[in-house]
Amino acid sequence: MQKPVLGVGLVGAGFMGRCHANAFRSVGGLFDLPRRPALAVLADISDAAAQRNAAALGFARATADWSALTADPEVDVVAVTAPNVLHEPIVLSAVAAGKAVYCEKPLSTTAASARRMTEAAHAAGVPTLVGFNFLRNPMIRLARQIVAAGEIGEITGFHGRHAENYMARSDAPHSFRTDPHGGGALADIGSHVISLARYLVGPITRTSASCRTIFPDRPRAPGASETAPVEVDDMTHALVTFASGAEGSIEANWAATGRTMDLSFEITGTRGAVAFSQERMNELLLWSGMSGRSGFTRIEAGPEHPPYGAFCPAPGHHLGFNDLKVIEVAELIQGIGGTGPLFPDFREALAVQETVEAMQRSSARRMWEDVRAA
Amino acid sequence: MQKPVLGVGLVGAGFMGRCHANAFRSVGGLFDLPRRPALAVLADISDAAAQRNAAALGFARATADWSALTADPEVDVVAVTAPNVLHEPIVLSAVAAGKAVYCEKPLSTTAASARRMTEAAHAAGVPTLVGFNFLRNPMIRLARQIVAAGEIGEITGFHGRHAENYMARSDAPHSFRTDPHGGGALADIGSHVISLARYLVGPITRTSASCRTIFPDRPRAPGASETAPVEVDDMTHALVTFASGAEGSIEANWAATGRTMDLSFEITGTRGAVAFSQERMNELLLWSGMSGRSGFTRIEAGPEHPPYGAFCPAPGHHLGFNDLKVIEVAELIQGIGGTGPLFPDFREALAVQETVEAMQRSSARRMWEDVRAA
Amino acid sequence: MQKPVLGVGLVGAGFMGRCHANAFRSVGGLFDLPRRPALAVLADISDAAAQRNAAALGFARATADWSALTADPEVDVVAVTAPNVLHEPIVLSAVAAGKAVYCEKPLSTTAASARRMTEAAHAAGVPTLVGFNFLRNPMIRLARQIVAAGEIGEITGFHGRHAENYMARSDAPHSFRTDPHGGGALADIGSHVISLARYLVGPITRTSASCRTIFPDRPRAPGASETAPVEVDDMTHALVTFASGAEGSIEANWAATGRTMDLSFEITGTRGAVAFSQERMNELLLWSGMSGRSGFTRIEAGPEHPPYGAFCPAPGHHLGFNDLKVIEVAELIQGIGGTGPLFPDFREALAVQETVEAMQRSSARRMWEDVRAA
Amino acid sequence: MQKPVLGVGLVGAGFMGRCHANAFRSVGGLFDLPRRPALAVLADISDAAAQRNAAALGFARATADWSALTADPEVDVVAVTAPNVLHEPIVLSAVAAGKAVYCEKPLSTTAASARRMTEAAHAAGVPTLVGFNFLRNPMIRLARQIVAAGEIGEITGFHGRHAENYMARSDAPHSFRTDPHGGGALADIGSHVISLARYLVGPITRTSASCRTIFPDRPRAPGASETAPVEVDDMTHALVTFASGAEGSIEANWAATGRTMDLSFEITGTRGAVAFSQERMNELLLWSGMSGRSGFTRIEAGPEHPPYGAFCPAPGHHLGFNDLKVIEVAELIQGIGGTGPLFPDFREALAVQETVEAMQRSSARRMWEDVRAA
Repeated sequence: MQKPVLGVGLVGAGFMGRCHANAFRSVGGLFDLPRRPALAVLADISDAAAQRNAAALGFARATADWSALTADPEVDVVAVTAPNVLHEPIVLSAVAAGKAVYCEKPLSTTAASARRMTEAAHAAGVPTLVGFNFLRNPMIRLARQIVAAGEIGEITGFHGRHAENYMARSDAPHSFRTDPHGGGALADIGSHVISLARYLVGPITRTSASCRTIFPDRPRAPGASETAPVEVDDMTHALVTFASGAEGSIEANWAATGRTMDLSFEITGTRGAVAFSQERMNELLLWSGMSGRSGFTRIEAGPEHPPYGAFCPAPGHHLGFNDLKVIEVAELIQGIGGTGPLFPDFREALAVQETVEAMQRSSARRMWEDVRAA
Repeated sequence: MQKPVLGVGLVGAGFMGRCHANAFRSVGGLFDLPRRPALAVLADISDAAAQRNAAALGFARATADWSALTADPEVDVVAVTAPNVLHEPIVLSAVAAGKAVYCEKPLSTTAASARRMTEAAHAAGVPTLVGFNFLRNPMIRLARQIVAAGEIGEITGFHGRHAENYMARSDAPHSFRTDPHGGGALADIGSHVISLARYLVGPITRTSASCRTIFPDRPRAPGASETAPVEVDDMTHALVTFASGAEGSIEANWAATGRTMDLSFEITGTRGAVAFSQERMNELLLWSGMSGRSGFTRIEAGPEHPPYGAFCPAPGHHLGFNDLKVIEVAELIQGIGGTGPLFPDFREALAVQETVEAMQRSSARRMWEDVRAA
Repeated sequence: MQKPVLGVGLVGAGFMGRCHANAFRSVGGLFDLPRRPALAVLADISDAAAQRNAAALGFARATADWSALTADPEVDVVAVTAPNVLHEPIVLSAVAAGKAVYCEKPLSTTAASARRMTEAAHAAGVPTLVGFNFLRNPMIRLARQIVAAGEIGEITGFHGRHAENYMARSDAPHSFRTDPHGGGALADIGSHVISLARYLVGPITRTSASCRTIFPDRPRAPGASETAPVEVDDMTHALVTFASGAEGSIEANWAATGRTMDLSFEITGTRGAVAFSQERMNELLLWSGMSGRSGFTRIEAGPEHPPYGAFCPAPGHHLGFNDLKVIEVAELIQGIGGTGPLFPDFREALAVQETVEAMQRSSARRMWEDVRAA
Repeated sequence: MQKPVLGVGLVGAGFMGRCHANAFRSVGGLFDLPRRPALAVLADISDAAAQRNAAALGFARATADWSALTADPEVDVVAVTAPNVLHEPIVLSAVAAGKAVYCEKPLSTTAASARRMTEAAHAAGVPTLVGFNFLRNPMIRLARQIVAAGEIGEITGFHGRHAENYMARSDAPHSFRTDPHGGGALADIGSHVISLARYLVGPITRTSASCRTIFPDRPRAPGASETAPVEVDDMTHALVTFASGAEGSIEANWAATGRTMDLSFEITGTRGAVAFSQERMNELLLWSGMSGRSGFTRIEAGPEHPPYGAFCPAPGHHLGFNDLKVIEVAELIQGIGGTGPLFPDFREALAVQETVEAMQRSSARRMWEDVRAA
């Protein structure tokens, strides 16, 4: 029999860590859950930071040593929001301890690393979930349902983009994002649009891509006058072929001046189309020809699009970004408790990473490349 | 010296009650607060409901007797989400006990009742806040800042609307919303757009209005075949004159087929304009002529629009409806703790109600009417 | 038997005159017409201007005397684009000569004058058409068809506006537009939205309105430092009741900073809604609930919306403002030739003017006013 | 000295031919021109068709023999709207006769053919213009001006698309569009977005493309039950590198269900961005950061965007598709008359065609390909 309480150990208390903590605190009042989450342990960069953040976020205990956290008997699930380079050791440690793992995307800095983590989790039989939170949007699920039901016919084209502007200035400094091991716009945000493409249209099998560095040098640190060369892409454009035969293009761009969150797509089928942008995350455009008056219909999020109703009983009351994390955490707990599926798990995240690496290889070799199977 | 903890007593556990409870639980992880809220007591319709909801929402204790709650020494603030007809007795009881009061809108079913509550709270010197949550939107605050700073010149026109469709079908049944004492579209949702108009352009002094009942009979209860006559408006259109000399129109409509949350406005000034709809609550349109290329600029919510940054450090990650309630609760706690203003308080809510009643009088008499001072 | 040629006499060669001339020249290549228009005579302010403009616009002859034009045997239809104060004498002269009359809106400066013109034309039995060109938009016709067919149920509300910014600056000078006889925003552009309201929802029977002058003084002429008081409205807001029982509001505003052509409406019915703005004149928004996925559908203009196909065989190739005038001229020629209806004729234009005057009376008296029958 | 009249010979009277004829008839009333166009000769498929269409469109004479037209001394400019396979012989004949040539796009069915035509015209020194009419849009010119002036910094990305749905159904039949010599979505409409890309960002030097046939068989004729295989692309996606170093993607798709005219782009620069879709052809979105309130500004077409003012003196009165052709014809006459440039001429059209063929080669070889110089 399961324990009624699910002990949560969180590694990292940056933006994403806070977001996780708040989601674990809110989820019980909004969703029916098989187990009640309890904020057991927070691990952070130092004892002082861990103590301070544990108090603010409501964790029972704090530590500067994540290996103590993964070993803690009161921790049932390890949530990983630490820097990407630390994902593998933390996750392997948690897996070895038999814990469920909830890891932020990208799963790791290379596909090889992600593959080791995936295989270890599989061997240990522990539940896993990766934080591709945009998949939690009820409107994305509606899109998937429309596509899967054949409402827009056979899919012929996918036109996707994740464009933001957070690195659009030449003086945006180096950080973990520009680390040649796992950094760059494609890995950082391209992974979101790839995960959407896979979720909605299926596996990408081949690609021809071009990765480009717009700013060859960036300040070593915020405000620093000294610069260092940039080895990662600021912008990637890719042609993609899906296993289904559909074709299309994908762009990842963190220097997209003017764009704050254009994670967007248009999916074209033989009988209709759906279009979406995260800039208007509570809307889905559908052209289905079902109506006698054709045109794109702007569907607004509402209770008929689960799990919107968990947040609000009436349509038109928008969900926000943080709500997506609450949905993710609800599904994590349901998945661990056996009352729902766990998706995307490590294997799916590995498939995303293999797609990223195929695009990088294609760009380096100026050739079409196959995506390796996950 | 203040207690570090702020004991919360919540009356009512419907949609709004749940929304309050979740906001009190989330707020500490997002905002710096002078006092830490603790969910002390929940009062609900029966002991069973109270126990069940208290467990789900995380309250320490439960009761079916709201007067026990208002008298409870561990309760510092009484949050009222009970039916409108109960607002006055609960609030007067809380005020008599010296508690701070956080009441859902509308403050009461009549301006006379709202006036009694306002005067009692004033006499007792207790802090008050009324839940006009749409005012909490960072984009609304940006609009106010733009107007107040004179960026769009002297305001000449206000064009506002709150249109939804939740009563658009003739078989939508009677409920507290259609109660002749305080019901109707104007009181229910018109109060939102009036509060926005006052917040952004100032007091409305005169009005000519037309209240109309579209469906003269509605089922007595959900699914009932027996009907009863409707005495309240489904739709109100009003001309308004502001103290400043600006003029405009306001519509309240709960039978607006196709609209889920068109709480919208366009404010015209001698040098610019701002426009907004809650349907796209993370955007504000501004025409300011400041740019060499004129046109409406779609400003997206971001950290430069406080308190957006409390939720997310980057722009483009939308806030949702429930986040507005978190902001409201943060400001409630800051106001009670003396680190911020409390607005809209009971007096402001009374002014909204006086505006509603002037519109109702105008419609009944088919004449322009003055709005009574609050 | 009809002459194969329809001789056109045009009075006035300003923007609207040029627009008429071009429409008469283009229409034959686009529409099947019972008679072929020939540009016979142009009358303008002086001989020199008339000669110059006749050459540019392709008229056979020119005159500075419009009474010579109305008497000319080669003129079959008199098109009037002269200043509003001249409409009555020119039209009465044309009517007396038995000519068909095609008059720009507003028909005249007062309802009394418009009534005299209407009765004279009726007595003489001459065909008449008034240039409310926005009614010619295929998307407006689609809206009318949707409403008339009951697709959106019984109409409950009309929310209309004509907002532009051409008088939004205090230094915009006096002109015929600010002439107290027939000027003002309500008469100038409010007449457009009133004609749309009547076309789509039917006669307006009662109104409560407020006309306001925003700039009490304007320069006497462009660039003049001397100013003169303004007696007309810059902005009018009106409540309206339709004969059908529908209610709503209408705004006319030529000081609407930021707006260039917001001739817009939303019509709400018991089963759906349609919305439109001339700012996107090739689109109609429809919420009909006919689709399994509800939401506003953005219908784009195409060949299935006559007479779009006269201009282009494929959808998505937008019509422009001048094309509306071509449609109007096609219908004028068809109406005169007996192959189609003539609408809006003088009687309809008189009804619009009576509605304008009822709003002006209501504003002056601060009372609801009946609209006089046309 | 130039003749005051410019004799026009038009070959073809289909949709585009009619569009040309109407433009030649309207242009004189709207633009100041160095020479007055006269509709001299129409050549069509048969004598009967030529006679009938000449009468409807206002041509003085008609012929079934286009070589008589190119030889006609009253013809100064030959306008070619015949099927693409006839472009080369007609144009070479006109060039040999020393006529100016105004040819619809694509210039020819292959780059080799287009090169022969370009060289012949160059050798003969005759003026040429090719009908890429979307370039005539004042908003496209505004975009070019913004880019050229450096308002959005150095251009980093171009994201373009021409998507329509006219071949989106499997039963859309074969026609000249699917002719393996010069047909396919890329040649038919991709050429438009390529011409825009070149106009705004400059030459494309390398590409990796994928051309795909969605429907392998189509009816031989409208309604025919017998089908024939399709050898051309329904949809092409391409990566592109510009001479400037900018990168991006281009899509051509005539099976884009739901899209009627999504000729659209977003151009990203280091300091701003512009975005456009022909679906809203009177609007340009600009993010320039010049304003203190950043966001995309929706600029509406108006007199400050030449030559809009030739059509209408006030903003907000939209131009339509046919107006673009009038602008093109005005510029043709001005170019021939020496009062303006002629662009895009044959050489530019050849460059577009070389870009199309590089994409086709890239798709066939699954490799990046250089674009040959024009």
